[in-house]
Amino acid sequence: MFFKRQVRDFINIDPLQTGGKLTEDARKVLLEWGDGYSICDYCTGKLESISKPPVNRFVDELRDFFDCDGVRLTTGAREGKFAVMHALHRENPEKSLVVVDGNAHYSTLLAAERAGLEVLKVENSGYPEYRIDEEKYREILEEAGEKTLLAVLTYPDGNYGNLPDAKKVSKICRELGVPILLNCAYSAGRMPLSMKELKADFVVASGHKSMASSGPVGVLAFSDEFSKVLTRESRYKKGKEVEFLGCTARGVPLLTLMASFDHVRERVKYWDREVEKARWFIEEMEKLGIVQLGEKPHNHDLIFFESEKLYQISKRVKRGRYFLYKELKKRRIHGIKPGLTKHFKLSTYLVPEEDLVRVLEAFEEIISNFS
Amino acid sequence: MFFKRQVRDFINIDPLQTGGKLTEDARKVLLEWGDGYSICDYCTGKLESISKPPVNRFVDELRDFFDCDGVRLTTGAREGKFAVMHALHRENPEKSLVVVDGNAHYSTLLAAERAGLEVLKVENSGYPEYRIDEEKYREILEEAGEKTLLAVLTYPDGNYGNLPDAKKVSKICRELGVPILLNCAYSAGRMPLSMKELKADFVVASGHKSMASSGPVGVLAFSDEFSKVLTRESRYKKGKEVEFLGCTARGVPLLTLMASFDHVRERVKYWDREVEKARWFIEEMEKLGIVQLGEKPHNHDLIFFESEKLYQISKRVKRGRYFLYKELKKRRIHGIKPGLTKHFKLSTYLVPEEDLVRVLEAFEEIISNFS
Repeated sequence: MFFKRQVRDFINIDPLQTGGKLTEDARKVLLEWGDGYSICDYCTGKLESISKPPVNRFVDELRDFFDCDGVRLTTGAREGKFAVMHALHRENPEKSLVVVDGNAHYSTLLAAERAGLEVLKVENSGYPEYRIDEEKYREILEEAGEKTLLAVLTYPDGNYGNLPDAKKVSKICRELGVPILLNCAYSAGRMPLSMKELKADFVVASGHKSMASSGPVGVLAFSDEFSKVLTRESRYKKGKEVEFLGCTARGVPLLTLMASFDHVRERVKYWDREVEKARWFIEEMEKLGIVQLGEKPHNHDLIFFESEKLYQISKRVKRGRYFLYKELKKRRIHGIKPGLTKHFKLSTYLVPEEDLVRVLEAFEEIISNFS
Repeated sequence: MFFKRQVRDFINIDPLQTGGKLTEDARKVLLEWGDGYSICDYCTGKLESISKPPVNRFVDELRDFFDCDGVRLTTGAREGKFAVMHALHRENPEKSLVVVDGNAHYSTLLAAERAGLEVLKVENSGYPEYRIDEEKYREILEEAGEKTLLAVLTYPDGNYGNLPDAKKVSKICRELGVPILLNCAYSAGRMPLSMKELKADFVVASGHKSMASSGPVGVLAFSDEFSKVLTRESRYKKGKEVEFLGCTARGVPLLTLMASFDHVRERVKYWDREVEKARWFIEEMEKLGIVQLGEKPHNHDLIFFESEKLYQISKRVKRGRYFLYKELKKRRIHGIKPGLTKHFKLSTYLVPEEDLVRVLEAFEEIISNFS
């Protein structure tokens, strides 16, 4: 049975989706490598060592791209986080706490929960900027003491698109002897990023979120220091790594990640333009009375808006809180969650300026029509 | 960058691949839903509840197909096994042992290892049939006693294609109060299968191995009895299940699984023909002096062969043990691992009879040319 995707040709401002749109090459490899387990044509036992297609070369390129010591392919950022927490906890069963930022994605909390760990939050600054104060990591980590297994920083978070100073947090963690993982699901593949420069121990990335790939696929980058713990081999099967169950992203999403990688390496160079475009879009939205929350000036394409106007309209129109979604859908604009009016998020990443103008016009029109 | 798949148009007898070949509909959804996270267009928080595309309806159909109480989508059979072991162990930390059959896939062992569990094997009967004696489960389980968390039976195993009497094993497990998981990576999607009839508590299946899907995607079927333990919700995020990190197969492989499902439901009805064809193929191979190991008569399309002749040839020809692989490649036949001559496995599943005739002719020719 065939399933049609209704919003395929819409202007797409869905925060989850703007960074995962496939390149033409990625679309071609879908058909070429779609059959189940075709990635294993020439596998000799290890995904990262396959030479046809050249996964091995790609992994080397990823290592350069992340500027790290080691790389493993995963089925996504969350699976990378769980692997790190689970592996570290096995080595340090007496350490049972993960310190995370208050803007952490829910999957960070679930990864800790699944690994049997407690979570302590470095709360954000609250309305309207929801900033993470890097120095607060010191406070919380000192308070938590010896039982801290890992610190996690979301860089940026998926709600407000806030980009904390990761290097500052890493330095604090280093001083206090706590390993740090950066959740880069919304940065790796969008902006330049060096794990060594950020002084992190682990970076998790998402192919489907920010590297122009089909899901589920991700990358876990790590430093030599933790390589042994993370890549422990099975005592039952030579060469198979326990924490990755022997093999992870064994399918076509990996091929799309590989096929899009030239494009991804290139696009991160133009990150400044994307930030500029996001700022321009924010400015235009604010002219309509729709206010941006989160860091100002803003440093990312993920944007969180607050609109009292749209909320007031929703209270009196026929379709209630679904009116905004319906109005945007009518204009073939996808990405703002059904039912939201007062607070919603969107992404301008790689959305052409003329499409963003249409989005702005849509908001203007909707507000004016319903006022 | 585009990557060409060298063996795409070959006759494919790779045991990993014959059951994962896409249907035409699955190929179409690849392009329609290839973009990252497009499955989330209308998600309201739970993969299995998405109605556009109709994942929710599909999950109902899977429940019927497996004849079970509950279903979760996974990224593959191994991830399903780990989820079960990990969830059960959390509930029963005092139970630290998994009893598995001697033909278990390595990923079963790794799943146990990752979950921190010991493994005890019900050994097979050895050369030439490598059978699993169902009654031995009783012996081993009684010996293991209270500390057994779970029993696993590979149905069939991926080496010999042996199909033990799963119902018999399940009954023994029930008598002794041990939950049983069937690894059906090579059966679900190939042959009819009822979890209730087999009296199992869990079934794991693989989309890319046996359900005409792109990888990575799988199914975990379970009984009501274990639903609560397995689908425990996060204390941090409402509605998100801890053991599945909130979401699993969030991408296009799931769409291929859905698109191929009509075909899969239909094809299992003709399983008898596939067994018949496999038996015929075995007969023909044995006429060439290539002997089938594993159960006789054989009940599956996965076939393990032993050939003293090919092995002897490999010892004196220029390309050594790679000669068989090269000779088959020359004839555009893919699926026997490079370097194997004495022992190798293949699958006849859904391979047209005329192609199997070409495979047989190839073996005949190779043996005769090199003798």
